[in-house]
Amino acid sequence: MTAEDHAALSAAVGPAHVDVTTEARIRHAGGRSTPDLLRRREPDQDAPDAVVRPAHHDEVRACLDVAVARGIAVIPFGGGTSVVGALDPERGAHHAVVSLDLRRLSGLVRLDEVSGEAVLAAGTTGPEAEALLSAHGLELGHFPQSFRYATIGGFAAARSSGQNSAGNGRFDTMVTGIRVATPTGDIELGRSPGSAAGPDLIRVFLGSEGIFGVITEVRVRVHPIPRERVFESWSFPDFTSGVEGLRRVAQQGNGPTVIRLSDEAETAVSLAQVGKIGKVLAKGTSVVTVYEGEGIDERRTRVSAHLAAAGGTSSGTGPAEDWLKGRFDGPYLRDSLLDAGVFCETLETATTWTNLQTLRSAVETALKGGFSAAGAKSYVMCHVSHIYPTGASLYFTVLAGVRADPLGAWEPVKARVNDAIIAAGGTISHHHAVGRDHAPWLSQEIGETGMRILSAIKRELDPAGILNPGAVIPLERND
Amino acid sequence: MTAEDHAALSAAVGPAHVDVTTEARIRHAGGRSTPDLLRRREPDQDAPDAVVRPAHHDEVRACLDVAVARGIAVIPFGGGTSVVGALDPERGAHHAVVSLDLRRLSGLVRLDEVSGEAVLAAGTTGPEAEALLSAHGLELGHFPQSFRYATIGGFAAARSSGQNSAGNGRFDTMVTGIRVATPTGDIELGRSPGSAAGPDLIRVFLGSEGIFGVITEVRVRVHPIPRERVFESWSFPDFTSGVEGLRRVAQQGNGPTVIRLSDEAETAVSLAQVGKIGKVLAKGTSVVTVYEGEGIDERRTRVSAHLAAAGGTSSGTGPAEDWLKGRFDGPYLRDSLLDAGVFCETLETATTWTNLQTLRSAVETALKGGFSAAGAKSYVMCHVSHIYPTGASLYFTVLAGVRADPLGAWEPVKARVNDAIIAAGGTISHHHAVGRDHAPWLSQEIGETGMRILSAIKRELDPAGILNPGAVIPLERND
Repeated sequence: MTAEDHAALSAAVGPAHVDVTTEARIRHAGGRSTPDLLRRREPDQDAPDAVVRPAHHDEVRACLDVAVARGIAVIPFGGGTSVVGALDPERGAHHAVVSLDLRRLSGLVRLDEVSGEAVLAAGTTGPEAEALLSAHGLELGHFPQSFRYATIGGFAAARSSGQNSAGNGRFDTMVTGIRVATPTGDIELGRSPGSAAGPDLIRVFLGSEGIFGVITEVRVRVHPIPRERVFESWSFPDFTSGVEGLRRVAQQGNGPTVIRLSDEAETAVSLAQVGKIGKVLAKGTSVVTVYEGEGIDERRTRVSAHLAAAGGTSSGTGPAEDWLKGRFDGPYLRDSLLDAGVFCETLETATTWTNLQTLRSAVETALKGGFSAAGAKSYVMCHVSHIYPTGASLYFTVLAGVRADPLGAWEPVKARVNDAIIAAGGTISHHHAVGRDHAPWLSQEIGETGMRILSAIKRELDPAGILNPGAVIPLERND
Repeated sequence: MTAEDHAALSAAVGPAHVDVTTEARIRHAGGRSTPDLLRRREPDQDAPDAVVRPAHHDEVRACLDVAVARGIAVIPFGGGTSVVGALDPERGAHHAVVSLDLRRLSGLVRLDEVSGEAVLAAGTTGPEAEALLSAHGLELGHFPQSFRYATIGGFAAARSSGQNSAGNGRFDTMVTGIRVATPTGDIELGRSPGSAAGPDLIRVFLGSEGIFGVITEVRVRVHPIPRERVFESWSFPDFTSGVEGLRRVAQQGNGPTVIRLSDEAETAVSLAQVGKIGKVLAKGTSVVTVYEGEGIDERRTRVSAHLAAAGGTSSGTGPAEDWLKGRFDGPYLRDSLLDAGVFCETLETATTWTNLQTLRSAVETALKGGFSAAGAKSYVMCHVSHIYPTGASLYFTVLAGVRADPLGAWEPVKARVNDAIIAAGGTISHHHAVGRDHAPWLSQEIGETGMRILSAIKRELDPAGILNPGAVIPLERND
């Protein structure tokens, strides 16, 4: 980055908010995937040339104007929790790259309590949003595992889905409006809760991962803080019967707020960790349910009947309560595991109910086969944590004893898994998004015509290609 | 259309399916708005040069190839029920225009009973779809007023919303996959019920009204045919209290399958027609509720409590049952009214709960003021028939005694209403779509950046501009 670049960005946001310290640059050098954690252990690593911190929409606009004029790549950065390489300091064809940290765009911009809508600045984190809303007795109710750090704008940009999705929906469905600064103009969308005024352009920006513009405000649906919360755990003889239980619950509607099924491998480990449950339960699969909101007794009665009919047995409140306590902790254990020589990573997909078992087997086979080819043993766990009337997600955690070069060992395994997901009819990501890690597989999911649509929007909104080069649309595509 | 054009299209679909008879051309000369009905009374009218009837996706593909090669405009045509001028035989810059009638693309292509998904050919009508599904004990449950004629592809292309939307959602939310033939390539989307694999490109085609491609198949969520149906009607002292009742029901969730509130003017006319209700009820506003599916008693108890708390009084099952019997009849009365010298048209919008009364007043004022300026008296009725947690739709019916040139009288009134909707923060259409009638107002809803996104997709997929010229994106835009 040149002195002139620095001066121009300083003019846009104030000199105090163009940070070129090593610490800031390293902290913005990537996300939180296991490869990110491993790369951060290396002495040499890529980092953005500066971290730029605008305070509001107009300063974002000013930063983009500078970046276009001077040919600087811009990586929008919210909570920094991407696990798909969406935050890599990739400069593309440009001479410099900055991380555009949006954390100063924080706060409740507007609240309409009658309509149940809140406008939140994009850099507001999950806990900040809930604190602001709780002062009005309201809740957003979006709790992905990244909740502690991730931002409202990031949830929108990555099409996040939270642990309460069975009751509150994925983040996509919570968004009723959006404000975006693109390199060639601003846009504000969302006049009404339902519309037939052409295609829903909000959906162009949900999942755009910063390649079309920088989301600066998001309008979301909010609801009263639930007064009650009821837990119930269930055990099933196997994964198949557990899936059947979840399918019945999903297709009946108005079920629990949280529902998740852990397969045999995950059940055994989780219950062993908790250390409270005997061997009988640990042998099958387990389901956690949490009910919040209206009509809990009636919902629980109906859901229980469906789960029992599918072969489930209620196992009390304990395991569900334990799950809730530790539900955001998983990702933070990986560093300790890596220290102990254990490689640990997660990945996820989704498909129809009919295809769920086929897809699960394909991914498990690819994971185990991949590590086996690298001479490593692996332990694969799977859970279903997002259900829909027509299908569900699959979330995998893999542990492997990889002695040397875990990064090098993982890359071909991950590629093998992505190939398997595509071949088995799954989506390349249910809620982690595309980033750079999944970008090479996207064309197999949406086809060449789909890639051409994305590229056409990209060319129109960001003709200089400054925004997040190589995320979603691979750099080598020359549309 | 030249003889060569005719021969090329005949080669694509077979000579029997290129229809140049006057009757076919007149029947495909427009949609079903009141201006359409009036225009069809004139001796001179525009009509497409031919009606082309492909039988399946590959024939649609072949037709588009011919149209691109020979410079023929193509108007995709499903049930022909557009009320926004989406079917006008507009040739744009091309020497000929054909109506691409999709009714032969009919039937159930695939059914996955476990996942609750059906793939329907785009030209399948509402009643055909329900008949095909009912053989398997299943239902789609999408009942817009156009149900008798409109097609699955049309529902998708126009972002339809049906009378059961409170329970079954708008058509947007029922779609889980789509297959489209564009002039520059095919696309098939929808690998999973939820995804974060980039922006949801299905949403680019929902609401695209045939300007990006021709939808040939739609995958939809289906559910078991409800075993029970319960009706209940309510009366409220006024519109404000009725809206408050609907808001509580929408925000609580899991309410009735159908809910609609008629204002004082509509209540008086409807009840007078039915002829069964005394003066007391006819003086306020009325709400129809219908419950289908699971847990009716419990849902009805909760909903009743909310409606009563807002000032409602139950008025038995009668009016709701009467509404159901006549619910698709409204549009077919307009011709008789026109014969009697009464102009009758409908229009609709939506906004947040907070803004609903303001928007209603603005539209009513524009309608009455507009007709008054034309020296005509008018009667305006309004109902709310699609509710969301954050807002609702408003549907207006206007009757006016216009003696001469009703078409000429209506045009400035409609423009005044559209201006009023934009100024009052509503959407230019909640479920009728854009077509050519609303296209000049779309840029005020989605902004210049929004129009540029639509134009960029259009240029990419249809560089020759053969598809439905002037619909959604006004012809005069030269992006």
